[in-house]
Amino acid sequence: MSQKSISVGIIGATGYAGQQLVWLLHQHPNVVINFVASHSHSAKQFSEVYRNYESFFDKRLINLEEVEPRLRSIDLLFLALPHGLSEPLTKKALEAGIKVIDLGADFRFDDEKTFEKWYNTQHEDPAINRQAVYGLPELYRDEITHANLVACPGCYPTSAILGVAPLLKMGVVKPSVIVDAKSGVSGAGRSEKLELLFAELNENFKAYGLFSHRHTPEIAQEMSKLLHAPVDVTFTPHLLPINRGILSTIYLDITEPMTEAEVYQQYIAMYKDEPFVRVVNQLPQISHVKNSNLCEVGLRVDEARQKVIVVSAIDNLIKGASGQAVQCMNLMFGIKETTGIHQLSMYI
Amino acid sequence: MSQKSISVGIIGATGYAGQQLVWLLHQHPNVVINFVASHSHSAKQFSEVYRNYESFFDKRLINLEEVEPRLRSIDLLFLALPHGLSEPLTKKALEAGIKVIDLGADFRFDDEKTFEKWYNTQHEDPAINRQAVYGLPELYRDEITHANLVACPGCYPTSAILGVAPLLKMGVVKPSVIVDAKSGVSGAGRSEKLELLFAELNENFKAYGLFSHRHTPEIAQEMSKLLHAPVDVTFTPHLLPINRGILSTIYLDITEPMTEAEVYQQYIAMYKDEPFVRVVNQLPQISHVKNSNLCEVGLRVDEARQKVIVVSAIDNLIKGASGQAVQCMNLMFGIKETTGIHQLSMYI
Amino acid sequence: MSQKSISVGIIGATGYAGQQLVWLLHQHPNVVINFVASHSHSAKQFSEVYRNYESFFDKRLINLEEVEPRLRSIDLLFLALPHGLSEPLTKKALEAGIKVIDLGADFRFDDEKTFEKWYNTQHEDPAINRQAVYGLPELYRDEITHANLVACPGCYPTSAILGVAPLLKMGVVKPSVIVDAKSGVSGAGRSEKLELLFAELNENFKAYGLFSHRHTPEIAQEMSKLLHAPVDVTFTPHLLPINRGILSTIYLDITEPMTEAEVYQQYIAMYKDEPFVRVVNQLPQISHVKNSNLCEVGLRVDEARQKVIVVSAIDNLIKGASGQAVQCMNLMFGIKETTGIHQLSMYI
Amino acid sequence: MSQKSISVGIIGATGYAGQQLVWLLHQHPNVVINFVASHSHSAKQFSEVYRNYESFFDKRLINLEEVEPRLRSIDLLFLALPHGLSEPLTKKALEAGIKVIDLGADFRFDDEKTFEKWYNTQHEDPAINRQAVYGLPELYRDEITHANLVACPGCYPTSAILGVAPLLKMGVVKPSVIVDAKSGVSGAGRSEKLELLFAELNENFKAYGLFSHRHTPEIAQEMSKLLHAPVDVTFTPHLLPINRGILSTIYLDITEPMTEAEVYQQYIAMYKDEPFVRVVNQLPQISHVKNSNLCEVGLRVDEARQKVIVVSAIDNLIKGASGQAVQCMNLMFGIKETTGIHQLSMYI
Repeated sequence: MSQKSISVGIIGATGYAGQQLVWLLHQHPNVVINFVASHSHSAKQFSEVYRNYESFFDKRLINLEEVEPRLRSIDLLFLALPHGLSEPLTKKALEAGIKVIDLGADFRFDDEKTFEKWYNTQHEDPAINRQAVYGLPELYRDEITHANLVACPGCYPTSAILGVAPLLKMGVVKPSVIVDAKSGVSGAGRSEKLELLFAELNENFKAYGLFSHRHTPEIAQEMSKLLHAPVDVTFTPHLLPINRGILSTIYLDITEPMTEAEVYQQYIAMYKDEPFVRVVNQLPQISHVKNSNLCEVGLRVDEARQKVIVVSAIDNLIKGASGQAVQCMNLMFGIKETTGIHQLSMYI
Repeated sequence: MSQKSISVGIIGATGYAGQQLVWLLHQHPNVVINFVASHSHSAKQFSEVYRNYESFFDKRLINLEEVEPRLRSIDLLFLALPHGLSEPLTKKALEAGIKVIDLGADFRFDDEKTFEKWYNTQHEDPAINRQAVYGLPELYRDEITHANLVACPGCYPTSAILGVAPLLKMGVVKPSVIVDAKSGVSGAGRSEKLELLFAELNENFKAYGLFSHRHTPEIAQEMSKLLHAPVDVTFTPHLLPINRGILSTIYLDITEPMTEAEVYQQYIAMYKDEPFVRVVNQLPQISHVKNSNLCEVGLRVDEARQKVIVVSAIDNLIKGASGQAVQCMNLMFGIKETTGIHQLSMYI
Repeated sequence: MSQKSISVGIIGATGYAGQQLVWLLHQHPNVVINFVASHSHSAKQFSEVYRNYESFFDKRLINLEEVEPRLRSIDLLFLALPHGLSEPLTKKALEAGIKVIDLGADFRFDDEKTFEKWYNTQHEDPAINRQAVYGLPELYRDEITHANLVACPGCYPTSAILGVAPLLKMGVVKPSVIVDAKSGVSGAGRSEKLELLFAELNENFKAYGLFSHRHTPEIAQEMSKLLHAPVDVTFTPHLLPINRGILSTIYLDITEPMTEAEVYQQYIAMYKDEPFVRVVNQLPQISHVKNSNLCEVGLRVDEARQKVIVVSAIDNLIKGASGQAVQCMNLMFGIKETTGIHQLSMYI
Repeated sequence: MSQKSISVGIIGATGYAGQQLVWLLHQHPNVVINFVASHSHSAKQFSEVYRNYESFFDKRLINLEEVEPRLRSIDLLFLALPHGLSEPLTKKALEAGIKVIDLGADFRFDDEKTFEKWYNTQHEDPAINRQAVYGLPELYRDEITHANLVACPGCYPTSAILGVAPLLKMGVVKPSVIVDAKSGVSGAGRSEKLELLFAELNENFKAYGLFSHRHTPEIAQEMSKLLHAPVDVTFTPHLLPINRGILSTIYLDITEPMTEAEVYQQYIAMYKDEPFVRVVNQLPQISHVKNSNLCEVGLRVDEARQKVIVVSAIDNLIKGASGQAVQCMNLMFGIKETTGIHQLSMYI
């Protein structure tokens, strides 16, 4: 199995998540990167766009028109595009028998209407969306293993859902959850916007998208499925003056008396064999997970008030995007799940 | 009135809040700093401890034993000490007819038992505590004006209470509030601890003190008085990798249908004449208030779900500590309230 | 004199240096801001562009065409424009009897040819340039006092020239100086460029403009005048991941044996009455000067090798731009030199 | 060869460089970590000291007394101790036939007197020092391959020496070099000092150790050997508000006319087969090398003035310490030189 070689193409390779995917795949022992495509930087060398790759990965970036003829030479297509753009290429790839992992939002929703309402765009062929498996291995490992199309979760939803899944599965919480999440700046993308300038964000901190961020229905969908009941989600993202990482502070009310130890037992029971979820007694920090595919989860229970606060930390570009995609790829191709994404956080 | 000169002493002048108080008072047109005292740095020059004062403010730091003989030469004593240490000097100062402004926690609680329980210390003479006025001018301006002893609020409570006071005064919210607050590192003090090292906090973010931070009962006390009913407070502080500033994201449920515009009207009604509270339509950011005595407040209402999120930002060392103390001083001595603290944030 | 009121206009008010100038002038007791103009943001409120001014300074930004009719209602025009654009308005203002302070490069050079060569642009009317005084009060106080047109120095030159002026005036150094300078990001301006994004600069550091930065001939001009001989200048700027501040490390060889104490004596002799230069025994730091108009200078001498290293720190937006402009204004209008710019660094 | 397994012990594993060494060795395919020792944290789990290792590397830290009995069970001893402490354990290890890689300064000097003078300490047995090879593979690959004792270079010297080696080897430079170097904070170690607190370093920048830093004679020794003549070195370190990385700006004068292209040719000639030195046409940045074992080098030549500026960037904890040690280990044990240290910078 360790000899297996997967030929992949990456579309949207020059965003921050895309380049992190290149970083991981370039060093993955079972992967050959067949092509990298970019709308905004096509015809440049990849290493012109990210100079840390110079002399290591110097492939020319192709444009989206050049992708189709190359599809038959790959086994797997990664898409890291803005929402609303993934369907046509996904359709062509699937028809050609090529597996697809989409890092965007287009195929994350069970109900197309939810997607259409929140993203203000339409599926041409809803049948494609119905083939998609939600790419969170901790919840859907078997489905991913057999999937042809995987829709990787958003970065915020990954941290939120993993943070509360054990409690929701137990069914002991009120169906109302507040997720107060804080993300490093790379989550906002690599675009030339005034509000992303160094001097505007450094020594600063702010909330955005109150009651309106597009990750809200995604979080609600998965939490509702875990609880087997509709969950009302309040989700507030904030922008941290750091490069990478998300920390979510999640507020829940439990419906029956439980001790902190009892809640921890449920978390350990669910996650003890998960290679990328670490349940900790001390509280999570971004420095414990950045540069890694880990999700760190800790919690406190106010037993008298029956309230729980869960803290969950991930690297938004890895477990929140590219690392999760590689984890799904490993499952889809029968490779050991941790291959190429086993490295620990460097801490500092 | 502009000729009035107040002679002040500052105890605890070498902490981050203390030095910020020196900064403000040094440039205040009506103040003469009579002495600065420090337990840990006594006998040094102040400008040895904070070298940015060299050639501008070179007073020798006296120790706490040297304070008492100097009390009669001052009009006002500022205390910026760790909790549990303010009472003896406060008593002596008040007996000598000197006004006192305490930046610490010792006199913030109406009920001494709350203080004793959360701070694990005792008042020797509770009568002193009962003289104290809570130093938040937006709520207690008249009382402060006539007070001999003012207990300035904590930094987190200042941002939380100002953020929700109009809604609580209206009486239209459920008595349960979640305050998810994020503070710059200076709030943790200037002590030589491993967890405060640059490399431990930079590119990092974490929560601390879940369900147990000592500002919880202070927030609950003031919110309960505003609502005229006990308010259940969940307060979660976090540490931001920036020097100064607090941003609080506050979650409330309203008990009757209200539009966002209606809620804003209440905020504007309450704060329109306040020199240091700015109600904004766009959301607050720390960069809009840092280095200033301003509190910036904005909010969003999910009208269908009857939920409100308030965002409130202050500079933790100024409006959250030293600036608020100067604002109280101005009131206590009949000086224009904005004197010496009118400067705007420098933004970057 | 303290009653004097100067009516000013500011062109280029929305760059980082321009807004800092607004910040200083808005709080200056002798200034009324008559208008603010901006090419890129005209017709907006100033407080839309910098929201920290909301409810404090809400003037509408006029465009450059609207400036001319307003010239006669002001006493002083500040220009903070990209190079090559200042001459026409300067000419009109001077002809109307209005004083001008230019924060740009257009009038900094004694020899127009130097400007034309390094900035690749031309003076239409060199006579205007010849009226200009170089706005560094520590070297040209008298000339500035009587000037109608002042050209404020660049940020890097301010730190470099003040750093070495005493040694050059003594005439005891070799005519070859290396200036290795490091600047905060605000020096690069507020433009929507990929290389200025937070994630590109944070946790990063780089040199730029080797042997080619336009501040080189400006540094050389002033150093040469101080030494009364041509000085060969090697100047290397770098970009620090901080908002504001410049620290220059300057390498010189002395031509005769001198002790460190002897060199310090010369520095103290030259700067002892300067309100904005602080000579320190310990080495300067950016935190000692940021948010202030101070220049901090310290040095070490390797007596055996006859080498000197001078370290000089300023706030690039204040002493390096807007504060220096206000200092010049104070001199030009007979106001106390420190008015409106006396505040100390806030340190953190 | 790929099956080879090296049993190693690490002394001083809990400093920032030590923990980075653990990070690399823990993931190295040919290494088994036999023990980790720490003076300050002995008896704790390693993962208590660095919580990012929890559930991945939970070894108990032994104290220095426990090391000796374990020596015979290892093949290689890594030392990451403060200077002056390495000799006794090195002696015992060598006598027991165990190879030693010292990350400290004790064995870096050809002349013991230089060490004794600059470090104010003595070698008990100079014969040990004479066995040591300077662990810079780009200069001493063969010697390292056959060495029993390797003294890894300091972080600053690594960046400085690699930056200028080609020019010095050519013999075309004046024997006087200025190295203006800037380091991330991790280089200052993990100790509870006031000056290392976040709020003291963030938004700050400073020089230190002018004319007196202990890396000066180390740089001079290696540069002199490269030039075959004594090189006068002026070395100025600075502290950057970032976690990791060193960028050195190096000033040299060339003794004969050369074009920039000619100089680049020499660099490419020397480094074209080096796996960890990347010669770049655009200038190096710390973000291109951090988290990697790469050294990036670029330069500019002012042909008219015969001056060269070289810019050199490394990760101080990897190529400047632990990665270099692993590179030396790979050579000493006949493993492919890039094993375990091939990963690229993550850029953001």
